[in-house]
Amino acid sequence: MLPAWHHSLLMKAARREPTRRIPVWLMRQAGRYLPEYRALRRQLDFLALCKDPQRCAEVAIRTVERLGVDAAILFSDLLLILEPMGLGLEFPGSGGPRLRNPIRSAFDVDRLRELPGMDGLEFVAEAVRRTRAGLPDHLPLIGFAGAPFTLAAYAVEGGPSRDYRLTKSLMYTDPGAWDALLGRLARSVARYLAAQIDAGAQAVQVFDSWVGCLGADDYRHYVLPHSRAVFQALQAFRMDVPAIHFATGNPALLPLLGEAGGSIIGVDWRSPLEDAWRAVGDSKGLQGNLDPAVLLASPAEIRRRVRQMIEPVRGRAGYIANLGHGVLPQTPVENVLAMVDAVHEFE
Amino acid sequence: MLPAWHHSLLMKAARREPTRRIPVWLMRQAGRYLPEYRALRRQLDFLALCKDPQRCAEVAIRTVERLGVDAAILFSDLLLILEPMGLGLEFPGSGGPRLRNPIRSAFDVDRLRELPGMDGLEFVAEAVRRTRAGLPDHLPLIGFAGAPFTLAAYAVEGGPSRDYRLTKSLMYTDPGAWDALLGRLARSVARYLAAQIDAGAQAVQVFDSWVGCLGADDYRHYVLPHSRAVFQALQAFRMDVPAIHFATGNPALLPLLGEAGGSIIGVDWRSPLEDAWRAVGDSKGLQGNLDPAVLLASPAEIRRRVRQMIEPVRGRAGYIANLGHGVLPQTPVENVLAMVDAVHEFE
Repeated sequence: MLPAWHHSLLMKAARREPTRRIPVWLMRQAGRYLPEYRALRRQLDFLALCKDPQRCAEVAIRTVERLGVDAAILFSDLLLILEPMGLGLEFPGSGGPRLRNPIRSAFDVDRLRELPGMDGLEFVAEAVRRTRAGLPDHLPLIGFAGAPFTLAAYAVEGGPSRDYRLTKSLMYTDPGAWDALLGRLARSVARYLAAQIDAGAQAVQVFDSWVGCLGADDYRHYVLPHSRAVFQALQAFRMDVPAIHFATGNPALLPLLGEAGGSIIGVDWRSPLEDAWRAVGDSKGLQGNLDPAVLLASPAEIRRRVRQMIEPVRGRAGYIANLGHGVLPQTPVENVLAMVDAVHEFE
Repeated sequence: MLPAWHHSLLMKAARREPTRRIPVWLMRQAGRYLPEYRALRRQLDFLALCKDPQRCAEVAIRTVERLGVDAAILFSDLLLILEPMGLGLEFPGSGGPRLRNPIRSAFDVDRLRELPGMDGLEFVAEAVRRTRAGLPDHLPLIGFAGAPFTLAAYAVEGGPSRDYRLTKSLMYTDPGAWDALLGRLARSVARYLAAQIDAGAQAVQVFDSWVGCLGADDYRHYVLPHSRAVFQALQAFRMDVPAIHFATGNPALLPLLGEAGGSIIGVDWRSPLEDAWRAVGDSKGLQGNLDPAVLLASPAEIRRRVRQMIEPVRGRAGYIANLGHGVLPQTPVENVLAMVDAVHEFE
């Protein structure tokens, strides 16, 4: 007998089967906008929390209960995979994460260790197991990882960047080192996601959050083969686990994201859903795409915007409602609830 | 008799007349990547330089001589217009400009003064006059201003932002205050550009550098009418002065940018030139779009990329070569020269 989550709204939509209502979850749904999360973080810094499987499970599960969303997502961070690969990771109080020894040259790429398995990331697998164990059977759990480009950009810049100058500089001046870097990351990411699936994730999302800084030609040439390698490895590993391929920042990449892989393409608000779906093609599902800043407006305005977002894709199988990026920390909880309710009430 | 600049490559391309070779200039061509500019800035802070018309003229003219580009651009800053409108402007050493009293509410919008004329900005008109007087007759001078959205975003955020949360929050929660703000900015920008034209600019560029954070529907609803008002006012003022409408960050906005106005649309590298031209339509010219990070590669690679960029629009009237955003401060001067030469050598 198939488990209850197999028939959930999210899993059906991810398989592009019709659903009686539209499934919804939110990127960064367990985050700083939640008072109980902020309270927990006053006791525990972010990295310590990520490495505490029991607490990760509790955070993910309580969020799902509180919001009434249609999926849980593993509580973790994109960059954790870089630690066992040899990069020193820090989460200072403000200004985003930092890497102590960023990758700047072919020499640095050589010292990056390819992830052999889950040694050094066992706490992530354990968080998946505990989250799965604590969730109701009808709710799927989404595992996740960064896409090769976004991880490489973090590894090279050493932190957030406005122009991705160092990343592009390596890409343009040393394509051999670049390919070696993305190859290592792609193989590591594939193993990491496979381990999350083994531990109990029903779907995975690959975040290419920073790839929108590239033009289409550069994406095709420098990135697509490596992202494709991740999705192909996942397909070879477990064909029945849906993969969501999320990117933000450049609608011109949408056809290429679809080409790279994933059965669902996650899109941001920069293009309307119907245009995005046209760009990725009918063979893919779609996830997105409310601007997280809309959740700073009134609940009435949020409901109006959710309806406006969904209306053009009404009745199409394979749609998952979400934001186009993570929930902003300043978002009132009742506004997140207004979005979830508005999706659920959509006829 | 028409002045020599009328027959320049840039002015012909801006009128979509055929040219014997492709004109090129670079956004932020007079900037920190130039050793002589850095030397000047060691004596004079940025705001003091902007308010010194003679030095602004010298910086603009010497840059054109050094690079051999086909146009000068006024040396100035997008944000100067906000000072006489009532916002306190600061350029601290790092982290970008700051506004001391940002706009956060309808009340703040009310205290923003609409620019009646060039009182408080006379130094800009004088910089235009002196730059024009010092330039060879065959070289056109481009004046510029920020677009209403980008100025509003700066005025609201008070400095650079990753998510434009405060801007969007005002836009979504108080559309009346938002329209009042953008209306004031649009009328001010139109007067400011008209004054630059009066003082001797042959063309103008309107920078909507931050508008790519919006989706197409939001742009159409909250921004387009105000940008259109600027271009319509300019057309009414002087039909024969070409206006370049530049934006970055979201290719899905391209058809709407064209709709808002400008005879030339300035685009970034996020979509290939041929796709961008299809999106803005044949009635417009195009400017762009090399990724500034390409100028961190070798001169040979830069030449290859310039040829690759231009090839698909070869022979089309109305094309001006440029970067897709400003020159990065880390760019070697010889690489900028390699780009200029590669455009000029293109057959």
